[in-house]
Amino acid sequence: MASWQEYLAQNRERFIEELLEFLRIPSISSLPEHADDVQEAAEWVAERMLQAGIEGVRILPTEGHPVVYGDWLHAPGKPTILIYGHFDTQPVDPLELWTHPPFEPVIQNGRVYARGASDDKGNMLIPILAVEALLQTEGKLPVNVKFFFEGQEEIGSPHLPPFVAANRELLACDMVVSSDGGQWSEDQPALSVAFRGLCALQIDVVGARRDLHSGSYGGAVQNPIHALVRILDSMRSPDGKILVDGFYDDVVFTEEDRRLIAQVPFDEAEFKAELGVTELFGEPGYSTLERIWARPTLEVNGIWGGFQGEGVKTVLPNQAHAKITCRLVANQQPARIRELIAAHIKQHTPPGVKVNVHPFASAADPYRMPVDHPGNQAARAVHLQLYGKEPYYVRSGGTIPVCSLFLQHLGAYTVNFAFGLKDEQAHAPNEFFRLSSFDRGQQAYCLLLHQLATVDSAD
Amino acid sequence: MASWQEYLAQNRERFIEELLEFLRIPSISSLPEHADDVQEAAEWVAERMLQAGIEGVRILPTEGHPVVYGDWLHAPGKPTILIYGHFDTQPVDPLELWTHPPFEPVIQNGRVYARGASDDKGNMLIPILAVEALLQTEGKLPVNVKFFFEGQEEIGSPHLPPFVAANRELLACDMVVSSDGGQWSEDQPALSVAFRGLCALQIDVVGARRDLHSGSYGGAVQNPIHALVRILDSMRSPDGKILVDGFYDDVVFTEEDRRLIAQVPFDEAEFKAELGVTELFGEPGYSTLERIWARPTLEVNGIWGGFQGEGVKTVLPNQAHAKITCRLVANQQPARIRELIAAHIKQHTPPGVKVNVHPFASAADPYRMPVDHPGNQAARAVHLQLYGKEPYYVRSGGTIPVCSLFLQHLGAYTVNFAFGLKDEQAHAPNEFFRLSSFDRGQQAYCLLLHQLATVDSAD
Ligand SMILES: [Zn+2]
Ligand SMILES: [Zn+2]
Repeated sequence: MASWQEYLAQNRERFIEELLEFLRIPSISSLPEHADDVQEAAEWVAERMLQAGIEGVRILPTEGHPVVYGDWLHAPGKPTILIYGHFDTQPVDPLELWTHPPFEPVIQNGRVYARGASDDKGNMLIPILAVEALLQTEGKLPVNVKFFFEGQEEIGSPHLPPFVAANRELLACDMVVSSDGGQWSEDQPALSVAFRGLCALQIDVVGARRDLHSGSYGGAVQNPIHALVRILDSMRSPDGKILVDGFYDDVVFTEEDRRLIAQVPFDEAEFKAELGVTELFGEPGYSTLERIWARPTLEVNGIWGGFQGEGVKTVLPNQAHAKITCRLVANQQPARIRELIAAHIKQHTPPGVKVNVHPFASAADPYRMPVDHPGNQAARAVHLQLYGKEPYYVRSGGTIPVCSLFLQHLGAYTVNFAFGLKDEQAHAPNEFFRLSSFDRGQQAYCLLLHQLATVDSAD
Repeated sequence: MASWQEYLAQNRERFIEELLEFLRIPSISSLPEHADDVQEAAEWVAERMLQAGIEGVRILPTEGHPVVYGDWLHAPGKPTILIYGHFDTQPVDPLELWTHPPFEPVIQNGRVYARGASDDKGNMLIPILAVEALLQTEGKLPVNVKFFFEGQEEIGSPHLPPFVAANRELLACDMVVSSDGGQWSEDQPALSVAFRGLCALQIDVVGARRDLHSGSYGGAVQNPIHALVRILDSMRSPDGKILVDGFYDDVVFTEEDRRLIAQVPFDEAEFKAELGVTELFGEPGYSTLERIWARPTLEVNGIWGGFQGEGVKTVLPNQAHAKITCRLVANQQPARIRELIAAHIKQHTPPGVKVNVHPFASAADPYRMPVDHPGNQAARAVHLQLYGKEPYYVRSGGTIPVCSLFLQHLGAYTVNFAFGLKDEQAHAPNEFFRLSSFDRGQQAYCLLLHQLATVDSAD
């Protein structure tokens, strides 16, 4: 019998053809007219899983687009790994910037160009192919595997939380491995160990019962814009520290965090040039990567009030508004931070106006996993073997809610194990995926599943 | 020969009919489709002046609506009085709130209802009728009189400054008497002695070259909204004092000012109820009337930047903007104040953003006249006779640019001598003018011209 390495090599052309077939389905989750295509992608995935030898395959409904589930659970005493990915894609606008039609994949210079190639069809197909190779060559898997693919990631997975909460048993596992994401570069692996969370609110400041003439009333009543400006300014020191009482209380930031972040190269000059700024600015005492990855923020996303047209209008407006989001880090809690901000606003409201604080439902817990989690240890071993290098332990300043979701409902951490690269135009025109990553990913998953067999299933 | 008092009484019905005729001309200066009506109003005024015995009557073009000039200059050794008013009106929106069509005047309960009845056709017709009465009964006027009526007051008199500058000789006078304005109440006269000026600018704050994702970049670069908020907040102390260096340097505010303002009744509870605020707010150490009438302001009229739609958008915007106007008091100069603010902004710009300050051409000098100006002394004597009371010495927090304009180009102060009242719905639906004011105004102007005969013409 051939080795899985030989199987992957022998079936390479077919796997690529299958990827192209998968990419031809325009499964754009944000557009109602593509709902059938998302369904078709689910069916394609289910069919491909069956073909790989995965069992119990089923398409399960949610309140929105469906999910696909399948498993192989014949490794008693071994850990159970839930492999996650998504088969929906971003829209394609602006279409005119695409060199080729986004759902007519072409291969050029070792790259597959198509919407969804890197994010996430190419990446999510990899573990299915790896499992097929192992089953076809070894007759079994080294661990128990569950697959959980969703079709609404690109619209924020709105219906996933109730689904996961309602399917705790079906999805129960020792850890999650996510096939959505990427590596640092072609020759440098990375493991993601933290994402920031989010909370959001709106501040509405109201003064007089109507807009006033600034001549007849100006100087005698509080201007809601001035009041809002004062409230907002009170939240942050001139040098960039958030002054909301208790804001940093639950933040975890260790010397080890600092050490690991310092190992990741960062080119400040390039960063500034990309943004077109002459100077960076942020919380004193932290590096730029620390500020983005490991420190919370309080950011005004929008502000408005009074006259915004051309020229001059001598109005003393009666309302002013601002939207705020905070990026949170472990162990800050969105609801708690919103409360602290509301309390700060109450305490700092100037005389003569009423202030209403409207919390938004949009919220996400920050995610932070142990750097030495058994899943990370296994992934590190694979990376060492494939890249010949220690991975960077990286983070994202953004929010990947699914990791917190699995932690909350399944009690399982998510190991991020995917092979996209930063230049692959995810969410942009001319998205592509490297065939070299497609190949390496398949080997990596075969190696990872073997590595994970040594992990204690009581993790 | 009858006295002027008898003449006014005998011709009362005719004068009222003439007022109605004048009010039927829809001379809305802001609407191009009413330009012919403004012209017709000018012709009506010129015709009526001729009929009154006024000489040298002519309609003179400006870059916009015309002005009407006329004079009677046969009182050698006596002062020359320039009487000012305007024959254009505000628009009528919202039309549905009018009880009667705005240009079909009706008389009800001693009031003439029509657009322009109080502001300013009723008031500006008064001195013409008074002059007719004097000429018809006494054969001459006690002083030299020039009339200068404009047709663009309600659009801010944009073409008046160059006209006045170019016609200094024609308009030369010892003082101006304005027939545009009003009295305190039906039984309380007032003399206006100061108006606030104005300057305006826009602040544009720019950060990165594009909007950024608040997850990927938040915490590492300056947010232009935060920067703007900081700049704006730095301009005012929490208790309402303007902190721009030098802002108050040229402000004149005397104990006599305080004493005169304190004589004017002000009902704070009523003021708050009207505005729907529970608390007033302004510069510490000054009363509400002082704050509105005699103290300068720095007011944000509008602010905007980033996301203003429904819900949440985690954007780190790259721009933020604010519009500012200052109400100025003598002897602040608009250009100087704009410079001081620009310097303040430069000094208080946080790191990581570029700030551009755009000054607007809209500007007006503050106006302040001596309380004991000979014109005020004469008006006071008339008020004492007609009302049996000392006038209040009042101000306006708004801007009446024509007073500064006459002072600048003619070297003459403007005595405000008109008979509108606050409840007469100027600029609003169902504007009206009291016939009692129409009558009293005619007597008042006859008395005033006699009083002014005692004023030194070298004033
Ligand atoms: Zn993705
Ligand atoms: Zn007027």
